[in-house]
Amino acid sequence: MKIKVGVSNRHIHLCKEDAEILFGKNYEFKKRNDLSQIGEYACEETVIISTDKYEFPHVRVMGPLREYTQVEVSLDDANLLGINPPVRDSGDLDNSEAVWITGPNGKIYKENCCIRANRHIHCNKLDKIGYNNSDIVTVKTKDKIMDDVHIKMKDSFVLEMHIDKTDAANFGLENGDYIELE
Amino acid sequence: MKIKVGVSNRHIHLCKEDAEILFGKNYEFKKRNDLSQIGEYACEETVIISTDKYEFPHVRVMGPLREYTQVEVSLDDANLLGINPPVRDSGDLDNSEAVWITGPNGKIYKENCCIRANRHIHCNKLDKIGYNNSDIVTVKTKDKIMDDVHIKMKDSFVLEMHIDKTDAANFGLENGDYIELE
Repeated sequence: MKIKVGVSNRHIHLCKEDAEILFGKNYEFKKRNDLSQIGEYACEETVIISTDKYEFPHVRVMGPLREYTQVEVSLDDANLLGINPPVRDSGDLDNSEAVWITGPNGKIYKENCCIRANRHIHCNKLDKIGYNNSDIVTVKTKDKIMDDVHIKMKDSFVLEMHIDKTDAANFGLENGDYIELE
Repeated sequence: MKIKVGVSNRHIHLCKEDAEILFGKNYEFKKRNDLSQIGEYACEETVIISTDKYEFPHVRVMGPLREYTQVEVSLDDANLLGINPPVRDSGDLDNSEAVWITGPNGKIYKENCCIRANRHIHCNKLDKIGYNNSDIVTVKTKDKIMDDVHIKMKDSFVLEMHIDKTDAANFGLENGDYIELE
């Protein structure tokens, strides 16, 4: 079974409270483009993500707002920032890393917000991939084996594997490539 | 005038001598995909690029072979490697940086090989962009000004602006976006 690959750049999800500190009271974010998962989109807005070691000046805000603020970075990004974020599911933020987040209206030092997203496959039951939600599987690229890929199954999900830029570089994968799931 | 953007990942061009050390005598590289510039292509093969600070395990080899070996990295890559490569035209390698290059058949410490490619626009006379070869121009993204963009004019060139991943992130540009040249 072939599954399309989506490569995620570093990005941030914001909760309403942090969004208002960074962008102002009741700020309305502007959609830049839809993502492949239904209802998810990239915003025009960016924030600065920084530590005492390094700064990424334009990190894309993703919409819509969530219950939690979460910064997702790659291993290379983490090494530049000088932090050691755990590899996690979205929303699993206990004991994750802290970074500075700066917007046009304010700046916050946010603890327990920064993770490396685990490699995962979004799918729904109708895709009949032969695995269940939370299973951890191995996939094949053209010439490599990639393990520790987490299945995320939900009725609203669209079949696609998400990996970060470091994984993409190391496995020779680009946006729109396909991997094989056995 | 709108011009399409191509975002370059870190990559390497090889001369025949280095290619033979890294991959073996008369090794024939396999084409992975054509690039937008005619005759240029990405190979299936990758090398390891490293310093005493960091390692990129799968850096794409570009074809065809050139007269010189050249490693092109972004500012973020350079910071991870702990080196300070100059911003240059392709082939302008005097006093550029040194890195280790490792292939399946051998390893070389290559001095004067590593640069950050300058931001540039490939074009040919028929594109009538209103500038000449080697001119340095300013372009507009949706919401930013990008200066120090070098014009590279040649009959065989296809109109496209090339920037590296750090510039792409900082200017909010992705592969296939358009910038405006006045």
